[in-house]
Amino acid sequence: MTTRVIQRCRDLAAISDSDRSISRIYLSPAYLQGLQQTEEWMLQAGMETWIDAVGNVWGRYACKDPQAPTLILGSHLDTVPNAGMFDGILGVMVAIEAVDRLKEQAIELPFHIEVVGLGDEEGVRFDASMLGSRALIGKWEDELLELTDQNAKSLESALEACGLNPQDYASASRVNDNLLGFWEVHMEQGPVLEAEDIPISVVSAIAGARRFKVTIEGQAGHAGTVPMGLRQDALTAASEVVLMIEKTAQQNNNLLATVGHLKVFPSAVNVIPGWVEFTVDIRSDDDALRERVMNLIFHSSEAISMSRGVEIYWSEYHWAPAKQCAPRFRQIFEESIAQQKIHVRTLVSGAGHDAMTVAEITDIGMLFVRCRGGISHHPDEYVSAEDAEIAVNTLVLALEKLAESLQESGVESSKD
Amino acid sequence: MTTRVIQRCRDLAAISDSDRSISRIYLSPAYLQGLQQTEEWMLQAGMETWIDAVGNVWGRYACKDPQAPTLILGSHLDTVPNAGMFDGILGVMVAIEAVDRLKEQAIELPFHIEVVGLGDEEGVRFDASMLGSRALIGKWEDELLELTDQNAKSLESALEACGLNPQDYASASRVNDNLLGFWEVHMEQGPVLEAEDIPISVVSAIAGARRFKVTIEGQAGHAGTVPMGLRQDALTAASEVVLMIEKTAQQNNNLLATVGHLKVFPSAVNVIPGWVEFTVDIRSDDDALRERVMNLIFHSSEAISMSRGVEIYWSEYHWAPAKQCAPRFRQIFEESIAQQKIHVRTLVSGAGHDAMTVAEITDIGMLFVRCRGGISHHPDEYVSAEDAEIAVNTLVLALEKLAESLQESGVESSKD
Repeated sequence: MTTRVIQRCRDLAAISDSDRSISRIYLSPAYLQGLQQTEEWMLQAGMETWIDAVGNVWGRYACKDPQAPTLILGSHLDTVPNAGMFDGILGVMVAIEAVDRLKEQAIELPFHIEVVGLGDEEGVRFDASMLGSRALIGKWEDELLELTDQNAKSLESALEACGLNPQDYASASRVNDNLLGFWEVHMEQGPVLEAEDIPISVVSAIAGARRFKVTIEGQAGHAGTVPMGLRQDALTAASEVVLMIEKTAQQNNNLLATVGHLKVFPSAVNVIPGWVEFTVDIRSDDDALRERVMNLIFHSSEAISMSRGVEIYWSEYHWAPAKQCAPRFRQIFEESIAQQKIHVRTLVSGAGHDAMTVAEITDIGMLFVRCRGGISHHPDEYVSAEDAEIAVNTLVLALEKLAESLQESGVESSKD
Repeated sequence: MTTRVIQRCRDLAAISDSDRSISRIYLSPAYLQGLQQTEEWMLQAGMETWIDAVGNVWGRYACKDPQAPTLILGSHLDTVPNAGMFDGILGVMVAIEAVDRLKEQAIELPFHIEVVGLGDEEGVRFDASMLGSRALIGKWEDELLELTDQNAKSLESALEACGLNPQDYASASRVNDNLLGFWEVHMEQGPVLEAEDIPISVVSAIAGARRFKVTIEGQAGHAGTVPMGLRQDALTAASEVVLMIEKTAQQNNNLLATVGHLKVFPSAVNVIPGWVEFTVDIRSDDDALRERVMNLIFHSSEAISMSRGVEIYWSEYHWAPAKQCAPRFRQIFEESIAQQKIHVRTLVSGAGHDAMTVAEITDIGMLFVRCRGGISHHPDEYVSAEDAEIAVNTLVLALEKLAESLQESGVESSKD
């Protein structure tokens, strides 16, 4: 069974900057061709379309009332190099399919729908991520145009090369529009739904994150001459800190902590490590919990260092608060999932998504679709046609429920 | 106070292949000049001298009886790049000074003394260490001459460039000589004597060593999407193994274990480590103990890996058994130290030394001299003049005691 959603993801995957793998980096020739292909599918679904000044593609499925609010559905169309075919793409294709379903079934809604395919969520090209959604929320500034890629080509000239007008970036902003919210369908990028045999889940929040670079300074020494009791081994100290972080995270639900990078100096078989650097990435949908746990980790690491006679230095280089999904959207998604006799599961998104950015100007809702092996950013990304179908059904049901809830609460009538 | 020993170490340090640091790599111009300088000091101390076919310098202080056995005193004269001035050198200078003292005091011994300054203990140039002492024990073979340095110059041509006759390497062997033993004075290269405020110690044995490369294979994953409970983190597994190794070593006296090198893949802040490689260096003067502890470490690491759902692979690439110092030499050294009202301390040598090689053909004895901060292989190497003086005194006393013990046991008379 191959639904049109999966077929379209596959068609887009064939549009690549590379002959050997999937790669549609923001504003590349393949990226632009992907936008045009997507625009064509939007037109087929009955939408009015345009590409905005920063290279996001839009399709509008308007309702009868010009004064009605707008619900935006979407995700991103750019990829990392050597990508899979679903990360971001799936959400745009599911949204187009849902609009097509509305059109086929002649379902009328009391709000406009716009589907957006955003650019540069991945942040591969310009060392700045979420550029598409940042334009949408009116957060571009002139300085941004001066960002350069690894070939020293500026964002401004890259936009111009795509036939866009970079100076007009403010026109991509939706800040002053009457927005109902932003819904994003995305592959899970984790192993939970597969492990629990559930095709789709509601997202409760996008986790906030802090990132640190940690340095432990001990005393290098000869592996054969310094007794165990006289050592100030930076690596055994780091190992104790790594395990403490893991244990602390395990003791708290809704929290992830990872030491992903670690480097030892001088790193020779017969030299006691004198210096170790590593990173800590800690995420939670509960900012207060994350702060409490971080404080505990700080203090525990100080205690470990003191008892081992080494020095530890923490340096923070990234901080982002958690973004909650709107409770009314969560409820609508839960009801839509339950109506299909699917167990209602709620997950926190540990990865960042466009919805995290858009949350600054409107309510957000997210759905996660099961993937295989938790794999993403890799050619092995896999979402089944059945699960994509369930995602479309869920989205259509949710749109109908949102319409009902608006009509009940009289939001519509307030506009007359 | 600057004894002649320290002054000579300083004079040799001024003979370097580098303008900026101490470097006398085996068979380099500075190495050769160092040999010649050392030969001159040997001559001044009343010795007959020669440089053997592989570039070791020898001085012979003969006794009256041509049939008497020979005691060799010595260490190495080559250095690592950017070296200190004492590692190896100190032992040769202390030996020359002791012979000078015998000559000044007209002390007659019932055995010949030979002082040797050996080449290439450090193994910097030809990716083979202990070349000087290996020639001494008759372990050179023709293949060895084909070893090349980083400039593709062979050992054979390097020897020829020094005016030596490489084909004659067998003449450097002392296997068939009537040897009493080999005594080596060396700086401790560790922090124990300094910590305990003791200037000199007897060495009981040179530790045996095993070295392993260990690989842990887990499952890489997204730091934001894989719950703590579903991870197969290769780094947290490695951390647990590192701490287990440290703890196991701490629970056993006379054993050192070090994880000196460790590398994480892919080593990115937001990726759960999928693969870690590290080295294990384990040393002990007790081979049986070391084997028991290694088995314990193997099994514990298997248990850790199993409980974490990762794979661990051990690969051994170095194995050397411990070498015991001769009890009669240890006893003589102990008595000589006690006679100076110095606390008698015995240490295991965790580092390898020429004596370890020479142990294959004759009894060995070693003395460690206190150094500062346990530092070696670094310009900051430091041995005080007072401690060097104590080393000379200890050596002279020990030579006298050895003479006494030989006369008592009638070894001398047996030769008539």
